[in-house]
Amino acid sequence: MQFQLTDELIEKVEVLVEEKNDKELKSLLNEFHYADIAEILDELDLDDALYVIKLLDSETTSDVLMELDEDTREKILRNLSAKEIAEEVEELDTDDAADIIAELPEDRQDAVISQIVDEEHRAEIQELLAYDDDTAGGLMAKELVKVYETWTVAGCLRRIRGQAKEVTRVHSIYVVNKQEQLIGRLSLKDLIVAKSDQKIADIAKDSVDWVHVNDDVEDVAKVMAKYDLEAIPVVDDNQTLLGRITIDDIVDVLKEEADKDYQLAAGITQEVEADDSILQLTKARLPWLVLGLFGGLGSVFIMKGFEEVMETVPSLFFYTPLIAAMAGNVGVQSSAIIVQGLANDNVRGSLIGRLLKEVGLALINGFALALLVVLFGFLISQNTTESIAIATSMMSVIIVAALIGTFVPIILDKRGIDPAIATGPFITTSNDILGIYLFFVISGLIIGF
Amino acid sequence: MQFQLTDELIEKVEVLVEEKNDKELKSLLNEFHYADIAEILDELDLDDALYVIKLLDSETTSDVLMELDEDTREKILRNLSAKEIAEEVEELDTDDAADIIAELPEDRQDAVISQIVDEEHRAEIQELLAYDDDTAGGLMAKELVKVYETWTVAGCLRRIRGQAKEVTRVHSIYVVNKQEQLIGRLSLKDLIVAKSDQKIADIAKDSVDWVHVNDDVEDVAKVMAKYDLEAIPVVDDNQTLLGRITIDDIVDVLKEEADKDYQLAAGITQEVEADDSILQLTKARLPWLVLGLFGGLGSVFIMKGFEEVMETVPSLFFYTPLIAAMAGNVGVQSSAIIVQGLANDNVRGSLIGRLLKEVGLALINGFALALLVVLFGFLISQNTTESIAIATSMMSVIIVAALIGTFVPIILDKRGIDPAIATGPFITTSNDILGIYLFFVISGLIIGF
Repeated sequence: MQFQLTDELIEKVEVLVEEKNDKELKSLLNEFHYADIAEILDELDLDDALYVIKLLDSETTSDVLMELDEDTREKILRNLSAKEIAEEVEELDTDDAADIIAELPEDRQDAVISQIVDEEHRAEIQELLAYDDDTAGGLMAKELVKVYETWTVAGCLRRIRGQAKEVTRVHSIYVVNKQEQLIGRLSLKDLIVAKSDQKIADIAKDSVDWVHVNDDVEDVAKVMAKYDLEAIPVVDDNQTLLGRITIDDIVDVLKEEADKDYQLAAGITQEVEADDSILQLTKARLPWLVLGLFGGLGSVFIMKGFEEVMETVPSLFFYTPLIAAMAGNVGVQSSAIIVQGLANDNVRGSLIGRLLKEVGLALINGFALALLVVLFGFLISQNTTESIAIATSMMSVIIVAALIGTFVPIILDKRGIDPAIATGPFITTSNDILGIYLFFVISGLIIGF
Repeated sequence: MQFQLTDELIEKVEVLVEEKNDKELKSLLNEFHYADIAEILDELDLDDALYVIKLLDSETTSDVLMELDEDTREKILRNLSAKEIAEEVEELDTDDAADIIAELPEDRQDAVISQIVDEEHRAEIQELLAYDDDTAGGLMAKELVKVYETWTVAGCLRRIRGQAKEVTRVHSIYVVNKQEQLIGRLSLKDLIVAKSDQKIADIAKDSVDWVHVNDDVEDVAKVMAKYDLEAIPVVDDNQTLLGRITIDDIVDVLKEEADKDYQLAAGITQEVEADDSILQLTKARLPWLVLGLFGGLGSVFIMKGFEEVMETVPSLFFYTPLIAAMAGNVGVQSSAIIVQGLANDNVRGSLIGRLLKEVGLALINGFALALLVVLFGFLISQNTTESIAIATSMMSVIIVAALIGTFVPIILDKRGIDPAIATGPFITTSNDILGIYLFFVISGLIIGF
């Protein structure tokens, strides 16, 4: 594609702002898509960004606002009056408008809402604000094209010309009965292909997918991805049509979920970006490191308990980082596969079957690794009994680590806790301690101490 | 939503297959969406699945085939003749058809292609097969609605009625000139709202986004997500319109990328699922474990070099798993943030700035953790000099680990290697060895050995 965010471009904008050369600035920015303008603003100083925001026409500004980094948007909104924010919100679709308002501090929300002039828009935004962020209701927009089953194709086309102007993209046309209940759908294509005196009820498809307003957004994403839908209507308990969710919002949900899971696996507790402040990054990273530290201190405690072994079999202590690493790596592998399987609904079959499979897998991997350890012991002329003890106890540690990595996420999931938190440092830490304890106990049984 | 894949449902299908009760089986399956039927087939024996596939009508079968698990699809296709596969392929859009054929062994591909009756469809599929999987060309479909700038709205609507029947969803209508070059776009809505004697050239929007046929699919996904596009046209060097990519394919690309990155972070080298065979899972997991083992054996070697320290400061050895874990955790955190930043194009600014930031962050985290280590040493009545030596060397290890975690992905990315491979076991392993070496060297300087 054509747009490239370069340092030269940013500098050019900065110079134009400093010179207050509004005319040239406007004509430069008018070339760009609002998403590109947002990328430029994310790189500017707050004062410069505010200058640009106030310069652009209101429709562009509202779109740019939606595309900004959350941090930048917060700073800019803090510097706009309630009336100015309300004017931006008027230009946005209801879902985006509600998202912007929800980000404001509580005391500013009411001030902004009361400044919205269009009563219908205001009422719809207030309705959307009442839904939980993680539900279909929190994601849907009120904008949609709705027709009654009793209309004719010709009448329908006439009225759609009116409704469609408010709706950015038409996708499906939803068919409702007199009670406003969703009973079917139509595509614009169906309408164009039909004869103008046909009744909507006769050409509507009654196999319409829908989600409930309280459904979890991740479930909505799954349904839309599975059935390749580009929009899905949202209904309440009475099947009343409340709104619709479009695929572009789902793409954002999928990206956020993927980023969050990836960071959890890497031991980062909050959503942060490389360009966040040191304080934000510390808050996201330190908690897991402290957990890891406690795990490590736990190992110190356990090894102190085996201090006298240092005189008889000192080499065991050289292997403790290896054992901890193996326990951690195997645990993370097992848990990652289960966490993904749970997310994609393909963890099926009995727990016993899964247990046997994990043990089998750990035995194969563990045996291969144990052979390498014995070979290494041979190469560094280590006592053979010791090598065998180390290799055998490592195998046991691998099996236990795999079982823990498999079952902790399954148990969390059954209790309704997001299993993704079980991956990364959590599994690593608990497996470290347990692994080192097992290592000394089993080695002791074989060598005899 | 309504569909639930239950054991009862699978059993019911199995019984109907065994009884060869075709009528009831058909009427049961006709209730379901093809994506649901695919989920059922994924759970059946191969013979049962084949029986169902041959029972369903050809249009449903082809859609079901596309939705199957890759493993199941491969097994089923192996049991269909080239002619049978060609019949399914005829029903599919060109992009799906090309995907199915590309999965076949080379020698069967030609056999299937030669059995495709529709010449245009065959030529289009052959064109698509020539593009690389990871490019826009490999993802695009030939089906699209195209109009010439010289047409009128009325003529356009008439011809679209013809073209649109082949196209599942219309999205945008692409406007081309006589040379078949993409020059603009229209929505169906624009057409419906326009007057019937207007010229297409007058109502078309000329700000049309497009991607080049050789663009990387990840870049296509980024463009479509950024600009909230639901379809994007694909052009060649001459701006000739070649095909279009729809958002549902991008959703699949995003999901696959996210799964792959997550697995890489967890130390799994190939795409596997919880339900894959033990052999497949071993192949995906063992390589990273062997790498981790070599890292651990490296630590054994280093610690053997410091064996005489065991007599003077034995407690140092109790801390080695802690040091290895900290080095690993910090390295994974740093690399994960950079890998995500690189993927989302928000790693900007100078390398020196990033270096200073990482060091600052590591100093803050390291200092907090060092205090805890000193406190712990006090609680277990450890020699104070030893505690301070351990805490200080741990801080140094954390700083080095953070720098390695930050710069390895950046360097890989600059060399055109996927930085995601640098996370997980790779960083953990190298940081383990280096961390333990640094730990002994710095402790030695402080304690004096």
